Amino acid sequence: MNFNIIRCARTILHVTDLEASRKFYVDALGFIETESDAEHLYLRGLEEHGHHSLLLKKADKPAVEALSYKVSSEADLEMLSEFFTNKGYKIRWMEEGVQHAIGRALRIQDLSGLPIEFFAKIEIVERLIQRYDLYKGAHIQRIDHFNCMVQDVEAAYQFYIQELGFACSEYTAAADEKIWAAWLHRKQSVHDVAFMNGEGPRLHHTGFWLSEPMAIIHACDVLASMGYGGSIERGPGRHGLSNAFFLYLRDPDGHRIELYNGDYLTSDPDFKPVRWDINDPRRQTFWGHAAPDCWFNEASAVLDIVTGEKIATGMPKLEQRKPETII
Amino acid sequence: MNFNIIRCARTILHVTDLEASRKFYVDALGFIETESDAEHLYLRGLEEHGHHSLLLKKADKPAVEALSYKVSSEADLEMLSEFFTNKGYKIRWMEEGVQHAIGRALRIQDLSGLPIEFFAKIEIVERLIQRYDLYKGAHIQRIDHFNCMVQDVEAAYQFYIQELGFACSEYTAAADEKIWAAWLHRKQSVHDVAFMNGEGPRLHHTGFWLSEPMAIIHACDVLASMGYGGSIERGPGRHGLSNAFFLYLRDPDGHRIELYNGDYLTSDPDFKPVRWDINDPRRQTFWGHAAPDCWFNEASAVLDIVTGEKIATGMPKLEQRKPETII
Amino acid sequence: MNFNIIRCARTILHVTDLEASRKFYVDALGFIETESDAEHLYLRGLEEHGHHSLLLKKADKPAVEALSYKVSSEADLEMLSEFFTNKGYKIRWMEEGVQHAIGRALRIQDLSGLPIEFFAKIEIVERLIQRYDLYKGAHIQRIDHFNCMVQDVEAAYQFYIQELGFACSEYTAAADEKIWAAWLHRKQSVHDVAFMNGEGPRLHHTGFWLSEPMAIIHACDVLASMGYGGSIERGPGRHGLSNAFFLYLRDPDGHRIELYNGDYLTSDPDFKPVRWDINDPRRQTFWGHAAPDCWFNEASAVLDIVTGEKIATGMPKLEQRKPETII
Amino acid sequence: MNFNIIRCARTILHVTDLEASRKFYVDALGFIETESDAEHLYLRGLEEHGHHSLLLKKADKPAVEALSYKVSSEADLEMLSEFFTNKGYKIRWMEEGVQHAIGRALRIQDLSGLPIEFFAKIEIVERLIQRYDLYKGAHIQRIDHFNCMVQDVEAAYQFYIQELGFACSEYTAAADEKIWAAWLHRKQSVHDVAFMNGEGPRLHHTGFWLSEPMAIIHACDVLASMGYGGSIERGPGRHGLSNAFFLYLRDPDGHRIELYNGDYLTSDPDFKPVRWDINDPRRQTFWGHAAPDCWFNEASAVLDIVTGEKIATGMPKLEQRKPETII
Repeated sequence: MNFNIIRCARTILHVTDLEASRKFYVDALGFIETESDAEHLYLRGLEEHGHHSLLLKKADKPAVEALSYKVSSEADLEMLSEFFTNKGYKIRWMEEGVQHAIGRALRIQDLSGLPIEFFAKIEIVERLIQRYDLYKGAHIQRIDHFNCMVQDVEAAYQFYIQELGFACSEYTAAADEKIWAAWLHRKQSVHDVAFMNGEGPRLHHTGFWLSEPMAIIHACDVLASMGYGGSIERGPGRHGLSNAFFLYLRDPDGHRIELYNGDYLTSDPDFKPVRWDINDPRRQTFWGHAAPDCWFNEASAVLDIVTGEKIATGMPKLEQRKPETII
Repeated sequence: MNFNIIRCARTILHVTDLEASRKFYVDALGFIETESDAEHLYLRGLEEHGHHSLLLKKADKPAVEALSYKVSSEADLEMLSEFFTNKGYKIRWMEEGVQHAIGRALRIQDLSGLPIEFFAKIEIVERLIQRYDLYKGAHIQRIDHFNCMVQDVEAAYQFYIQELGFACSEYTAAADEKIWAAWLHRKQSVHDVAFMNGEGPRLHHTGFWLSEPMAIIHACDVLASMGYGGSIERGPGRHGLSNAFFLYLRDPDGHRIELYNGDYLTSDPDFKPVRWDINDPRRQTFWGHAAPDCWFNEASAVLDIVTGEKIATGMPKLEQRKPETII
Repeated sequence: MNFNIIRCARTILHVTDLEASRKFYVDALGFIETESDAEHLYLRGLEEHGHHSLLLKKADKPAVEALSYKVSSEADLEMLSEFFTNKGYKIRWMEEGVQHAIGRALRIQDLSGLPIEFFAKIEIVERLIQRYDLYKGAHIQRIDHFNCMVQDVEAAYQFYIQELGFACSEYTAAADEKIWAAWLHRKQSVHDVAFMNGEGPRLHHTGFWLSEPMAIIHACDVLASMGYGGSIERGPGRHGLSNAFFLYLRDPDGHRIELYNGDYLTSDPDFKPVRWDINDPRRQTFWGHAAPDCWFNEASAVLDIVTGEKIATGMPKLEQRKPETII
Repeated sequence: MNFNIIRCARTILHVTDLEASRKFYVDALGFIETESDAEHLYLRGLEEHGHHSLLLKKADKPAVEALSYKVSSEADLEMLSEFFTNKGYKIRWMEEGVQHAIGRALRIQDLSGLPIEFFAKIEIVERLIQRYDLYKGAHIQRIDHFNCMVQDVEAAYQFYIQELGFACSEYTAAADEKIWAAWLHRKQSVHDVAFMNGEGPRLHHTGFWLSEPMAIIHACDVLASMGYGGSIERGPGRHGLSNAFFLYLRDPDGHRIELYNGDYLTSDPDFKPVRWDINDPRRQTFWGHAAPDCWFNEASAVLDIVTGEKIATGMPKLEQRKPETII
């Protein structure tokens, strides 16, 4: 492995009503709208210098078109293309100019069936981190991670670590020490991607990083006063796993968004991955709250990188679907 | 009505294990232990200049011995005694010296059956508001209110307003505009006492005021790291009613405590009480979360001011026991 | 004294440029603009149900027209009129209709020369406390207090306590236990008005209450990003006296505003006023920072209630003008 | 350059009174004391899995013995040794066992005269990030950066970037676009080391990262209540440069510590360094406050890696010693 994947960089979501999405993401949550047209809404966080980290496309049905990673250079794209081709993966090149504000991009359907994209170049725009007069809602800072439901977490875990050079920060062990979920990173945070045992492949959520915890409380208040109380699915709470202070939201199309603050530095090669037992009551919510069933069952469909059709999902390998209820 | 009731001032709880209570209230939540002996634990908040606002007494069974209001002077006690005697209430004087650190006190069983106490004098101790080196856990500042389940909220509401001089800040209306719950105050905050329609008389919770919202988040973290995750019953969240940022805890005996921040000033006679429909999804939790059933069903038994026996409870007048589940 | 003064309720400031004021108070600090016309800007905080608590009037020179207290009823106004007349004070009635949104008002020039107004009635408007989507800048909640520089603090202190029924929460003692400054309240907070020894009569600042400390940090950031860095005169910091977390700003006309959070409950008659030595380094800023000289020297001119002319100022009675510099 | 420097990892300070240091760092600021003996105090932050990030050694005079970087492996140490030897630098090996809890280490005196250390191995200890019951004072999370005063910033900047592989996140330009100060990083934060134009070589401060801004406010309060008000040198405030929310403290020996929260992700090769003009009033403090002169003039002496003698300092290359005072 000679390519350098830097970090998770954008999610492309299909949504059915761009105006409804704008109201939710821009007016309520405070995403910055870099640009838009009749078919697209390009959104970014306040500290981001890339053109967008969330691309919403008008479509008939909600779905996930791609999860994009930024790589270091064009050469990395070539190496990735060769790597996946040699492994027998179907690849698809999106040449420069095909996607607005993004350079040449490589798409693959990964071993779990997830539509993954790699690109090196994105249009540079103004960082608004010190334009506090523009801060609204949740004060969204930057994209942080993807969380995906897959049928075989252990296989995904092995592939991303051994073949793609990710490192594991934390994981959840089920019976017989099977890996039930894993948090993997390229950048020096807890994760760029997490895999959870579940009906898959599906995108469980995209996480966005906030700079301080009160932004989550304020986001709840703003959402509620705008009539989005029903969009708050879970939290606020503290994850045992990752130590993040979190809030889960469902957008107007049901796509799940995590607002995320906390985390820690994962720069060191001698960092030992943290093991959590799936039934540890402090794992999912450090404070002991159970997540609602919908949080475990519902997720976004993902699309075929070539046909654009919905990828069929299958049942997960490990039987346990969620932590045992704690009484 | 010529007497001057100032504010809610202390709760006397019977607990079964003082050491377990100390660990919860002092070590975890950060109450200040003013004094203690083999039978009593006297606790106060950081800004309080009174000897205690929470008195825990060792007993065989958890129960509520009294809910105490501070009045302006000894003369107020005399007037209250005359008032309740004239109304045909049984009264009980606790002469000075009978209760540690408290002057002469008058106890009555109120119209709902709640054990109420009035006193004018309490031993003055050092305010620790600027001893930030002693702040721990939830940074408890002061007692804020009692919340009681009673059979006939409307009767309690009328009596406390017309006879005792309380004012209403907010209330919940059920079918036919019947008052399902009411928030009443003497001091200039949202409440000193709230009454909710339910099996009563019982004490639902005692509320303690915190100076800022992050203290609630930190309290959750501290409680969880000390193994008290199971004590967190509801929250953190924002009440629509009162606008408070809240957390509900159950102490080792099951007594409920609310950590409370937010509120607003209720000094003005032209303040119009805020009406909430019982089924308004933003009433109980502004952010839309439903409270768990135990929060509606469980509460602390209260004792007879003379015999010390548990007061028998009865079913509430209004049929609706909790808001309709929102789906 | 039979009248009931409830609380400080509004400041009337003369400003030279209403547009500049709107940009500062509404756009940057987040005051709610209830109403405006070519000559007036009526502003209130998010929890206020009164029409305004800050009235800005277009004028040639910056000045303070009046500091207004809300009283309980029209009868209180009559009693106050009689009281001041009997004491030999000049009074001025502003009949209903003369001032927009305010009922009949009584103005007097108090013993220190300050232009004081009393009113019972103000137009009731919507409280926006739960319209979090409208929160901006400093999230201004409500007016809290006036702080005035006067020549003879001890005389003002005695008059406001003995004649007007204020209570003292904290005070600063100079040499020979002379009162150098005093914090006096009617509502149950640390103060409605403070008097400081200085060239007077002048208004030092009007304090506005915020609901939580991070609102002050966010206000600094917003002000700086809008080019108002030069308006931040002092802080953020913690006052030893009052325990408030504070920020002092100068508006475009030089009027001083305090953003204020913290405080404590002052409901109890047995509360013993807190004494601070003027040279205690923790008095002015608990953390030890010295205030800049301009904070001690500069303040707003006040006007004659009848002629509208600037009241001439005089040197204060106590020689010490500010705390000794701590080295 | 083939070696992999991971991040700044520890500061070794000489202090004159270990008890005074413990009271300041452990009791007041909340550093975790991993271990200690009569001559050493080993301290770490709450999220750190390394044995210590701050080593205090008893000595006659305050000084800086070393600034340590963690490298990826032992091989990196060998490559660094060869690199510096080839460049004509004096090196010193500290063999495993010589320094408690640290593996083999390489020390060099860098081009500016700073005593730099590299090590790959440090004893792994328990991460206490979720032991919220142990959080005290400033809730110190981890070491973040060194800030050094050097005579020739531009030379240091070039060497660290071109020879050691650091990247520049932000810099300050003086007259003729000369680099007056530079923020350089290996880990994906704003900096591991900053160089400022000044009398050098000296250590200006070591920065420690906190997880949220209220921890800085609480730290001020705790410090003040323990009598450390005089230790607060500057802040709290927001840096324009780096966007950090900061507080500067002086320890009992005068060593400067920065409490630091904010920052942003610097993972991307296409990140363009942010340029600040030295006289931009928002550079040093976004909110416009000037730093006190002592902040520009005072810093800690550094020692010779071989003799342990104080390195003589010299005047800086650029004339301007601090930003022009803003009036």
